[in-house]
Amino acid sequence: MVKGVDPLNEHQLIQEYFSDVGSAYLKEQGIRVPVGDDAAVLSTPKGKESVISVDTSIGGVHFLDSMHASDIAYRSVSVALSDLAACGATPAWFTLALSLKENDPKWLLDFKKGLEDISAELKIPLIGGDTTKGGNLSITIQVGGYVDAGKALTREGARIGEVIYVTGCIGAASSALDNLRSGNLTRLDKNRYLRPKIRFEVSSELLDTASSAIDISDGLFQDLDHICKASKVGAVIIFEKIPTFSSNSLPLDEINRGDDYEILFTSDKSNREKIERLAKEVNVPIYEIGLITKGDKVSIFTQKGKFLNASSGYQHF
Amino acid sequence: MVKGVDPLNEHQLIQEYFSDVGSAYLKEQGIRVPVGDDAAVLSTPKGKESVISVDTSIGGVHFLDSMHASDIAYRSVSVALSDLAACGATPAWFTLALSLKENDPKWLLDFKKGLEDISAELKIPLIGGDTTKGGNLSITIQVGGYVDAGKALTREGARIGEVIYVTGCIGAASSALDNLRSGNLTRLDKNRYLRPKIRFEVSSELLDTASSAIDISDGLFQDLDHICKASKVGAVIIFEKIPTFSSNSLPLDEINRGDDYEILFTSDKSNREKIERLAKEVNVPIYEIGLITKGDKVSIFTQKGKFLNASSGYQHF
Repeated sequence: MVKGVDPLNEHQLIQEYFSDVGSAYLKEQGIRVPVGDDAAVLSTPKGKESVISVDTSIGGVHFLDSMHASDIAYRSVSVALSDLAACGATPAWFTLALSLKENDPKWLLDFKKGLEDISAELKIPLIGGDTTKGGNLSITIQVGGYVDAGKALTREGARIGEVIYVTGCIGAASSALDNLRSGNLTRLDKNRYLRPKIRFEVSSELLDTASSAIDISDGLFQDLDHICKASKVGAVIIFEKIPTFSSNSLPLDEINRGDDYEILFTSDKSNREKIERLAKEVNVPIYEIGLITKGDKVSIFTQKGKFLNASSGYQHF
Repeated sequence: MVKGVDPLNEHQLIQEYFSDVGSAYLKEQGIRVPVGDDAAVLSTPKGKESVISVDTSIGGVHFLDSMHASDIAYRSVSVALSDLAACGATPAWFTLALSLKENDPKWLLDFKKGLEDISAELKIPLIGGDTTKGGNLSITIQVGGYVDAGKALTREGARIGEVIYVTGCIGAASSALDNLRSGNLTRLDKNRYLRPKIRFEVSSELLDTASSAIDISDGLFQDLDHICKASKVGAVIIFEKIPTFSSNSLPLDEINRGDDYEILFTSDKSNREKIERLAKEVNVPIYEIGLITKGDKVSIFTQKGKFLNASSGYQHF
């Protein structure tokens, strides 16, 4: 280290605020040594593989600093978990690397509340943490889960002729963000932007049904393009089939603004009924929006056959 | 997200700079889906448990911004790995969450070189990453490894009457940091501060020998205190027995400045010869510095029995 001494040390901060988040779920998640020792020790369930992902949320970039600390915490963990859903994994634990300007006990307690909320909702304990003093508020969440060995969904498996599906509705999160900025947040917006719900109830049932999957956090077209690139295929989307949250159809750029933590997946036509049944069982809408084709691009057409141009979605840099 | 579009997007940045770091070691580490998909998929070796830890390094706090980017990368991964050594785990993979002020290709290539160096040294691939635009340079490294099931070393197992051991020598890193600041870095200082070597060759051999272990990154006395608290014991250290890198004995505060990524562990007296043999075999000095006692505090005495006061080591906040 380079700098000197300060009133509250890291060990105390982790112990005081974060050591017991989700501790009720440690045993069922196979975690023997949780927060507070040097590292966490985990048993992988029999027949499972681990799925791991990392995601950083930064104030002013990935969330508004004006958001309530509990929502910042909830959202940061939730968006990180979205990558596990994209692989068909079931979440099991998370770690937190938190960089703060200052030690503000009220803010930290609120932040802890948001961690506890998502931890309780998904029964996932916090198993490790690091707190540092930095410039911006920065939250890096590592998430881990499990999937049946050899069954993880990737971006690579899409095949020509398969149907492209998407869950939920598109554009709701960016609309909620606009409302948040203008101070007109509705009750529904809360889940749409502040506390996005990840579609684990769908994704965990897709292991034998989907050929490829991705979460569409960066924008529908950009994320579908990742599947096309990885699977070496093209895609055709029918514009009017894209489910949008408003009754009017959204302009293409609105559709592609990102932040909708929905799942896009591909599946053989023979699975249509199975997917319809799943949507009813878990009470999450799943829509057919297009087909996998030859080629290497995402093309968007209207139902009348007019070709549309789309921007490439959210750019991080 | 909140902000708009920028020339180089995250997907390109990860692909361009980080997708192949350590890819030669993916197979032997049981990793099926590496960087580039939504998440990494890992097989845990039979009879093993996973050990996971996270560590953030921030410019101006945990390293000097003036350091070469490759050393910043190497050091950030190395200090994160130290927590795995403390558990007796063998490292298997790491992830990177990098927050940058700007996209500087020269700096990124140098940074990548440092990642490649430590990846090659320990045969651990980079299996996931996230890049964000932020204020300070911030590097969060998540590390994972494996340990024989049920054998992980923790801070809890120290028992009264056991011997306290420490590897290597103390105070070298902070001396190297002083030299780095004053522009007088020696060849030896490179390993001491810029590229600390983690004692895996010792720690991985301690599973059946040590009763508790910790890495002493925050200062010898503070980290020993963590063992005492977790094990509900006290400790007596003999000042002159603490191995310091200079021939003169260091003042207590110098000993406790931290950044020495050595391993402190406790073991029954009956293991003395075994530990001496291990030190010879792996060519790492291991020193007896004291004893575990009744009580709940770390006490430091001179050989003549004079009681000394020690500060509590590095404080993160």
